[in-house]
Amino acid sequence: MKNLPVSPLAPTAFPTLPLVAGMHASASRIGLYGGTRNDLMAVVFPEGASVAGAFTLSATRSADVEWCATQVKRGKARALVVNAGNSNAFTGPAGLAKNAATIAEACRLTGAVDHEVFLAATGVIGAPLPPRTVADALPNAFEALAAPDWESLARAFSTTDTFPKGAGTTLDLDGTAVNIVGLAKGSGMIAPNMATMLVFVFTDADVAPDVLQAMVSTHVETTFNAITVDSDTSTSDTLLVFATGASSAAPIKDHSDPRAALVSEALRGIFHDLAMQVVRDGEGAQKLIQIEVQGAVNDRSARQIGFAIANSPLVKTAIAGEDANWGRVVMAVGKAGEPIAVDQLAVRFGGQWTAKEGGAVAYDVEQVDAHMRGRLIDILVDVGLGSGQAKVWTCDLTHGYISINGDYRS
Amino acid sequence: MKNLPVSPLAPTAFPTLPLVAGMHASASRIGLYGGTRNDLMAVVFPEGASVAGAFTLSATRSADVEWCATQVKRGKARALVVNAGNSNAFTGPAGLAKNAATIAEACRLTGAVDHEVFLAATGVIGAPLPPRTVADALPNAFEALAAPDWESLARAFSTTDTFPKGAGTTLDLDGTAVNIVGLAKGSGMIAPNMATMLVFVFTDADVAPDVLQAMVSTHVETTFNAITVDSDTSTSDTLLVFATGASSAAPIKDHSDPRAALVSEALRGIFHDLAMQVVRDGEGAQKLIQIEVQGAVNDRSARQIGFAIANSPLVKTAIAGEDANWGRVVMAVGKAGEPIAVDQLAVRFGGQWTAKEGGAVAYDVEQVDAHMRGRLIDILVDVGLGSGQAKVWTCDLTHGYISINGDYRS
Repeated sequence: MKNLPVSPLAPTAFPTLPLVAGMHASASRIGLYGGTRNDLMAVVFPEGASVAGAFTLSATRSADVEWCATQVKRGKARALVVNAGNSNAFTGPAGLAKNAATIAEACRLTGAVDHEVFLAATGVIGAPLPPRTVADALPNAFEALAAPDWESLARAFSTTDTFPKGAGTTLDLDGTAVNIVGLAKGSGMIAPNMATMLVFVFTDADVAPDVLQAMVSTHVETTFNAITVDSDTSTSDTLLVFATGASSAAPIKDHSDPRAALVSEALRGIFHDLAMQVVRDGEGAQKLIQIEVQGAVNDRSARQIGFAIANSPLVKTAIAGEDANWGRVVMAVGKAGEPIAVDQLAVRFGGQWTAKEGGAVAYDVEQVDAHMRGRLIDILVDVGLGSGQAKVWTCDLTHGYISINGDYRS
Repeated sequence: MKNLPVSPLAPTAFPTLPLVAGMHASASRIGLYGGTRNDLMAVVFPEGASVAGAFTLSATRSADVEWCATQVKRGKARALVVNAGNSNAFTGPAGLAKNAATIAEACRLTGAVDHEVFLAATGVIGAPLPPRTVADALPNAFEALAAPDWESLARAFSTTDTFPKGAGTTLDLDGTAVNIVGLAKGSGMIAPNMATMLVFVFTDADVAPDVLQAMVSTHVETTFNAITVDSDTSTSDTLLVFATGASSAAPIKDHSDPRAALVSEALRGIFHDLAMQVVRDGEGAQKLIQIEVQGAVNDRSARQIGFAIANSPLVKTAIAGEDANWGRVVMAVGKAGEPIAVDQLAVRFGGQWTAKEGGAVAYDVEQVDAHMRGRLIDILVDVGLGSGQAKVWTCDLTHGYISINGDYRS
């Protein structure tokens, strides 16, 4: 695995994150990833946790994703086991056997029942592992459980990420401190397979599973489901949120609890922060691009138009070239297959309108050029029909992307 | 405009093409494209022609496309005017005024009525031209009308094509020779805007407009609508087929005429040939990729899966890297959103199965590697459900694509 230079869009340092009560974790090494780095994260919730999640919709998603998507409906977790280096996707019966052995071992070590054990994996596709590969590493991993060292955990399940990704906050719920921390891995190619996004969020708030799931389902749409690096969908994308209830704050059993809104908003903020970090670490990314669409017939339509722009190679290469090429944006709007008022179409780069009412307008070229030379690119498109709106985020398409994904043999 | 090196996938020479009776044509220069090359093709059918067509579905398609898509329904043509250097897309009222002046001038010069004049344009988006820009060039262009010099005509409406594109054949219809010639421009970026495909096919067969339109509508699906370079859709894509009826073959008025099948098959062959030339000239293309999908629930589903693979940047960069990365193909199948039997999924590269029944299989690595080093890459995917099948074509995604579309400012 090549050592890639750190993304120019990376934060300057890993953030300082609070502890989350009611969980122990460890980072250790199976040896699946090669080299000497850790490739296994183990987490145990001794008193259990509520759990909620969201998963890739791929028709070829991994055995691990299938397992989690089924068990998350029961809403209870006792352990989480995550490995890097092998995604266990497209591995058929061997993949199921590996998972069964891992789950059985985790149950033996923690007293959990099987549906309380959650699994995630990222790495090579279609390479079946011997069934006990992960299971045999669990006794040592569970022996090492301790208060979480967040950065070390984030690194243990990263792949070609150029920086570890974490975000967190401490909330005041009626005078009681409640902590929320999220870790993510982003768009890295692996040996040589594909981008995968894994996100794990932990809180010591006490939130009923259905309330937690509603928060996740709401916020995933405007955060992790509003980003794209290259339009390709992983077989392994997994978001899991665990609420241990180990803080002394009273349980949140219902959406109408006013504290639910506070937790929900904090979760949204952490999802957004991690989603932006994933885009900032997009393969070859030199610029983070925000695309806002307004004037669509509804929000869903605005989002479709936003993704047509965000996934357009011609738009993304123009931005890599620091060109406010609104003609390519118009092209991308046109191909989205959504209703627009073409004679009302307007495009803005960095606060300057470059097209309005369906045609070019004079604009301050120097100011737009200065915006395009920056790291954060802001595009607004108004399609002139209704009040539907959406924001999506992507990165530019550069020689770096081609090098990472196409040159690995040379 | 940079001079790009000729695609390594280009044919060795422009083909020798027959004359088509009943048409005169000229290539001349307005000066829209810069340099000294021609940028105007004019064609006149003195006795008229049947016409049929297919057009981009973009919601931001050009004024020229809107005009042709409407008038083609009347089925009669007298003149065709095509310019390079300005697409007349997203030009609002100015674009309509330019077209009106061009059409009026063509009518004055040829005696046509307005709906018999067809227009196409490729080039910069959103740059309105003075209304008489093209009209004022028509007297000279029409003065120069002569028997077609096909290569010169193909060059007159090309943009960043690295080679002129033509294909043709002579048919024997009950002892009478009938000629068919097609010209195309492919995926070139222009100054700096977008890929556009323009295709014009001329025959001296006498084919009723509705019969011709049925042939076009059928064959466009498996040829021009089965190729993709980068998933971006032009605002100007235009296919027009003109049948002058100037050969001495009797008119084909009905599908049941056995000669209709001969003409239809010849058209399909020319469409296919030109479509392959367009992909072979895809920006940065080093390899032509054929993706065949079988075992889908129906042909439409197979086609969707084919395009999910053909548009996947991770698949296209892997092929640029000469890697038979079937894991990325599995990923792309998964994201297509179509029904598949994941435990029956099979992937073949160049005749060698790399995955079968939902998992990896041992294969002759040397043989597959040799295939991947070639110019023509052949991928077969069986999704294990039904009898739906489709073929689509694309090219690889290379540093050349990024250079052409992102580096033009440097």
